[in-house]
Amino acid sequence: VNEFELIDAILSELGETAAGPEVVIGPGDDASAVRLPPDETLVTSIDALLADVHFPATARPELIGYRALMVSLSDLAAMGARASDVLVSLTLADADSAWVQSLARGMAQAAQATGVHIVGGNLSRGPLAIHVCVQGYASEADLLKRSSANVGDRIYVTGSLGGAAAALRRGGLDDPDLELDDLSRAYFQPQARLVQGVLLRGVASAALDVSDGLLQDLGHLVSASRVGARIDSGRIPLAAGATLADALSAGDDYELLFTSAGPLPDLQITVSEIGEIVSDEGIWLDDDAVDPAGYQHF
Amino acid sequence: VNEFELIDAILSELGETAAGPEVVIGPGDDASAVRLPPDETLVTSIDALLADVHFPATARPELIGYRALMVSLSDLAAMGARASDVLVSLTLADADSAWVQSLARGMAQAAQATGVHIVGGNLSRGPLAIHVCVQGYASEADLLKRSSANVGDRIYVTGSLGGAAAALRRGGLDDPDLELDDLSRAYFQPQARLVQGVLLRGVASAALDVSDGLLQDLGHLVSASRVGARIDSGRIPLAAGATLADALSAGDDYELLFTSAGPLPDLQITVSEIGEIVSDEGIWLDDDAVDPAGYQHF
Repeated sequence: VNEFELIDAILSELGETAAGPEVVIGPGDDASAVRLPPDETLVTSIDALLADVHFPATARPELIGYRALMVSLSDLAAMGARASDVLVSLTLADADSAWVQSLARGMAQAAQATGVHIVGGNLSRGPLAIHVCVQGYASEADLLKRSSANVGDRIYVTGSLGGAAAALRRGGLDDPDLELDDLSRAYFQPQARLVQGVLLRGVASAALDVSDGLLQDLGHLVSASRVGARIDSGRIPLAAGATLADALSAGDDYELLFTSAGPLPDLQITVSEIGEIVSDEGIWLDDDAVDPAGYQHF
Repeated sequence: VNEFELIDAILSELGETAAGPEVVIGPGDDASAVRLPPDETLVTSIDALLADVHFPATARPELIGYRALMVSLSDLAAMGARASDVLVSLTLADADSAWVQSLARGMAQAAQATGVHIVGGNLSRGPLAIHVCVQGYASEADLLKRSSANVGDRIYVTGSLGGAAAALRRGGLDDPDLELDDLSRAYFQPQARLVQGVLLRGVASAALDVSDGLLQDLGHLVSASRVGARIDSGRIPLAAGATLADALSAGDDYELLFTSAGPLPDLQITVSEIGEIVSDEGIWLDDDAVDPAGYQHF
């Protein structure tokens, strides 16, 4: 099969995902074109998932594709943006159309689950990697930044943490015939918290998604906001099978970490209050000062 | 150096390129946010440039960065879009901040030359590759598609063709100390024809950029438009040092190939009429039917 046959195989899997009322030009031209909402800002991010770094290369491609899209969309959730479109640049070593179709099927599932369109892409021969550019919308006033936490704000996290790390520790994620259970779902089927991001507009003072690990991401938030944080280890929501260390220092869960001074609306999923923003710059876990970047080593 | 130090090194090179009146949030948060123009469509494309496939890995990184951005922006030119923003996902094997700063400097030069902002990016350790997502704007009526050429339209190409191929044939592009001359400039400093794309709104019936080679790209245009084309080998504008075969089958020049029934405005650069759209599906070079995909083999 050649490049164009592979692209056709992908498009056949995308189906309705590549079209929609606001899609003026979908895949197949030099670029795609989508209609814009009035009075909003375009929120965009680009992410890379490399084989055997960000996913096991031998895993079922459908799982890889689903995860790649959700992980990338999580950045839009963290901004409070409504997700709209994605573009995917894929490099792969072999022109295996069954593999590529399965990958595209997983991406289409994630796109349908989140209501986004896959409007464009690129295919090159090279080491297996998936680069995803995500596009969404939010009014300027609704954007959730990481730099605007205030002293006294409570710190919250959605869902539970450490599940993906526990799945990685158990192993077997590289098994092409893996039967999904709760642990492997935590790794392969993270849910971009897009609904929660939108519900947090005007509620969260600052937000980001937990991709590097709770302590490290909290470190990004407090340093961008020029404040500190005190968190309570006993209140950190642990996923089944996860240790406190998993929750503190492993990423891959893609939950939202946010701060708020006010009461929270119903976010439709579990939310845990884990601490508060303080004026002294730094992070305290219970009563111990911790170095977010160095935490993995202790 | 770690990931965050590398990112700082890149941002220091980007400078004003990462900011602007319509940039609400630039690099550094989960995603960037830019204000939108009213009544236009968002035009987007994603491209990959892989080391030693799309550029020589040992070339001066400043040249690699400049070329990567221009090549990617060329897709917006081909749509008649005004270029606005880019996001770059970079994978590299070594955390070499001097190399990365030089790459960013080249990207910033291309961004300044075209008036775009580099609003976001991603950095991962992996085989050297540059993925670029470009974003621009055009009203729906102004979009230049590849599928709307009409029988009787004249076929035009901007600039000259084959220069990049001639540079590749001469060799030496991988020399880190290369002194640029006209031939190596054709390869490393293609100019995205953004000004021409906008001038062709309402004038060109169909357009694309020449990235795969004149015959192959003309093949894309006529098959999308369900027409044929007859071109005159003697009228194809050859770059200095280029052969007819270079111009016909080599890509990398990133000139615009377009069709039009009407008179052309002043496009500010050389434009050559090279043939016309005919009703019989296929491509004729002088009086010979040619297979665009197979042309490289004859």
